Amino acid sequence: MIKARVTVTLKNGVLDPQGKAIEGALGALGFDGIGQVRQGKVFDLTIETADREKAEADLKAMCEKLLANTVIENYTIALD
Amino acid sequence: MIKARVTVTLKNGVLDPQGKAIEGALGALGFDGIGQVRQGKVFDLTIETADREKAEADLKAMCEKLLANTVIENYTIALD
Repeated sequence: MIKARVTVTLKNGVLDPQGKAIEGALGALGFDGIGQVRQGKVFDLTIETADREKAEADLKAMCEKLLANTVIENYTIALD
Repeated sequence: MIKARVTVTLKNGVLDPQGKAIEGALGALGFDGIGQVRQGKVFDLTIETADREKAEADLKAMCEKLLANTVIENYTIALD
């Protein structure tokens, strides 16, 4: 069994209203010096195989097909 | 300026309907051997300070107050 973490983040230049809202909320809570906040998603998956290369190829396909919108998002894959 | 990444994930035992939906969707797309999928959030922040200890303490306070619901979520903080 392989554990993997896929992290999906917005590409630079893509507007992130959710991140902007968090920036504002942190300021309102009294935290100063907050530069920029960008929000992304993380997926923790377990895959029932021992073949790390196949797992990585599968994960890449999953990202391209479902987990990330590659027009506006980047993804990184980390195997445990 | 310090870059930080906060990762917020559901605690074990907390139901994750979004993760379950992704599991189902990956199965429907023909990916087999998917064990479990859990979805979480990631926040990329920049903080305008050079004091790493203060930044880490601030980030912990931000997680406790805003970024994570500590009843059902865990968080990890990573400084660049």
